[in-house]
Amino acid sequence: MCSSVDLRGPSSTPKAAPGPVQDIGEVYLEEHRELVLEEIRRIVREGSPGDDRAYRLMLDYPLRRAKGLRPALCIAVCRALGGEFEEVLPSAAVVEMYHNAFLIHDDIEDGSLTRRGGPALHRTHGIPAAVNCGDGLLALTLGPLLGNTDRLGLGRALRILDIYARAVLESFEGQAQELSWIDEGTWQLTDADYESMVRRKTCSYSFVAPGLVGAAVARAEPSVEALLVSFLESLGLAFQIQDDVLNLEEGRADYGKELAGDLWEGKRTLMLLHALRSAPEADREEALRILRKPRPTAGSSDVGLADLLREMVDERVIDEAARAAMLGYLDRRAAPPGEKTEGDVLFLRRLIDGHGGIEHARAVARRHAASAEVGWQRLAEVLADSVHTRFIAWLKDYVVQRTW
Amino acid sequence: MCSSVDLRGPSSTPKAAPGPVQDIGEVYLEEHRELVLEEIRRIVREGSPGDDRAYRLMLDYPLRRAKGLRPALCIAVCRALGGEFEEVLPSAAVVEMYHNAFLIHDDIEDGSLTRRGGPALHRTHGIPAAVNCGDGLLALTLGPLLGNTDRLGLGRALRILDIYARAVLESFEGQAQELSWIDEGTWQLTDADYESMVRRKTCSYSFVAPGLVGAAVARAEPSVEALLVSFLESLGLAFQIQDDVLNLEEGRADYGKELAGDLWEGKRTLMLLHALRSAPEADREEALRILRKPRPTAGSSDVGLADLLREMVDERVIDEAARAAMLGYLDRRAAPPGEKTEGDVLFLRRLIDGHGGIEHARAVARRHAASAEVGWQRLAEVLADSVHTRFIAWLKDYVVQRTW
Repeated sequence: MCSSVDLRGPSSTPKAAPGPVQDIGEVYLEEHRELVLEEIRRIVREGSPGDDRAYRLMLDYPLRRAKGLRPALCIAVCRALGGEFEEVLPSAAVVEMYHNAFLIHDDIEDGSLTRRGGPALHRTHGIPAAVNCGDGLLALTLGPLLGNTDRLGLGRALRILDIYARAVLESFEGQAQELSWIDEGTWQLTDADYESMVRRKTCSYSFVAPGLVGAAVARAEPSVEALLVSFLESLGLAFQIQDDVLNLEEGRADYGKELAGDLWEGKRTLMLLHALRSAPEADREEALRILRKPRPTAGSSDVGLADLLREMVDERVIDEAARAAMLGYLDRRAAPPGEKTEGDVLFLRRLIDGHGGIEHARAVARRHAASAEVGWQRLAEVLADSVHTRFIAWLKDYVVQRTW
Repeated sequence: MCSSVDLRGPSSTPKAAPGPVQDIGEVYLEEHRELVLEEIRRIVREGSPGDDRAYRLMLDYPLRRAKGLRPALCIAVCRALGGEFEEVLPSAAVVEMYHNAFLIHDDIEDGSLTRRGGPALHRTHGIPAAVNCGDGLLALTLGPLLGNTDRLGLGRALRILDIYARAVLESFEGQAQELSWIDEGTWQLTDADYESMVRRKTCSYSFVAPGLVGAAVARAEPSVEALLVSFLESLGLAFQIQDDVLNLEEGRADYGKELAGDLWEGKRTLMLLHALRSAPEADREEALRILRKPRPTAGSSDVGLADLLREMVDERVIDEAARAAMLGYLDRRAAPPGEKTEGDVLFLRRLIDGHGGIEHARAVARRHAASAEVGWQRLAEVLADSVHTRFIAWLKDYVVQRTW
């Protein structure tokens, strides 16, 4: 099914392209994204009795522009180990469905405004429908996983369910850890604390589980699974740290999430933790004060009030002088609890720059990228050369090169 | 394990007690609630590496005052059919864990203020932690269900997973249906539409699935399963309709949810649908206008504004006349979108009373209760007499007698 992928695939415009290897990866991603989307559509259609609005909403995030790294990784590992495409496809679709369910709830939890170039689902359809939509996508993953018993037999089906159950639980734990750090104002964290959170929040469901599911379908030996876990954990850490760095960098229009969203959300990234550790006490206190403030909500009451005052002047309820006096008072007044301002976020951004936060994060990412390189060398020894093996190598290069 | 339950159990104070039969049920519920809670604690402890805040939060709802009808039903059906307590306990715990995960997300979706006599979880811990806590409870249900393969063998374990997957998907559908009716202002619905929604939202995971899981553990024949489904669907419908009626009735301090919460939330109950169908057009239009308004949020912006104006007078930013003029303007101004008021909810309540909404709902509930009676007679023929069979009979009486 991947016969059209070859070394002479059409040239695209990668940013840090390692030559023709990049082309393989992009074609491989694109082809598999289509196949996985078709499978997700089929699963959603099977769940839905008619043309149901609630089921259509499940396809909103999956249909937005995205790379589809996770299902492609799952399929590539399976096929590189000799497994069949048809056998792994439903489980690869589940990997992508879980990712989207996670994103829907994650966006609510982080108060994210945008996702993949559009507004977050809870902003277009409300929190109630978005919470339920995520639950629905999750519920819908159980069918294909149970269907694996017919497709793959009980042994492999249960192994995949085990991998899935563990990944789902670990992402809950990672998410809970991150939320509680924000909630409790925690900052005395080591890089190891951050990495332990990311192992559960990102590495588990985005790298390790897709790889292990692919390996399970291909009946891989435990020794191969161990090589995979080691390689993919390092790769996932390098990926997430670089993702955090990208989130900070401005002016990247092709980057789906809103800019510096992590600072607005108060996320404990390596950059921020490093800056908090390195800053003089007064700056740190100011940063912690800012971090305790919530991000502005969509319909901020201050914006609403300014509009209302303008309206009252127009309607001759108050005069212009009263409006000016009130706006001035509102500006002077430190509105408790108060929301983060642009200036607050700029302060955090400068604190990170002033203490080499990004350089520190990049250095840690490079260490993990180097580990991933070592892990890949070991893993590659047990994989036959094929387009699938070359795709995994491309994916490794893609992640690693983002980190240099 | 239930040897202490007998016909001469300690007398309690039921409201509509059918004599000593009531005592059996309450003792049975209480004993099994303790055993199921202990099992849930064990499952949560197993998931949690240390004394983890996120895992402790999962026990918040389960530890509040509740009857534990669902796991008790699951266990009773299993044992009435000759199954073993130890074999069914983990799955009964899953039934209760899923129920609590559903409630956590349901309370967010409905904007509910209270649950089981305390504030809703998202009000004490915020929406982010509550969304994630529900996800965590859901994730934690997969372990015991997969553990069933060791306990019960592959066949029964997969059957239980199938029942569970279906129930989880159906409750998503029922929930989505209810939310979309509220969201889209739908009112031209028949009683059959309402019943189809309740079959998925309530009957499936609260009645049918617990019964079928118990039956699966006891290796029940398909013919017995069919009798169970028919009996439990009717019982679930009678239960939910009566639950809706109780939600409307005031002055019941022992009723855990906030009073008339369904009207604030705009839920399409049988009473409301009947009143909308029966009311003259003008009243209906007014009711629909009210139903389109959202319920007030905890920190209503109007309240905040009034406080702010008072503060501005105190701080001599504006004078008392300006404040009065502004408050007057705000009163005259039809603030879009506007929130439901006490008066609005009273209007809906009176519309329902004026058109016999409660009598209509009770009549429908009685029909389902009568079906449940018939279903029970058929089912009872295949069950040997035991404390478990008598508990199911008590549960049936408990639900049916609420509906007279």
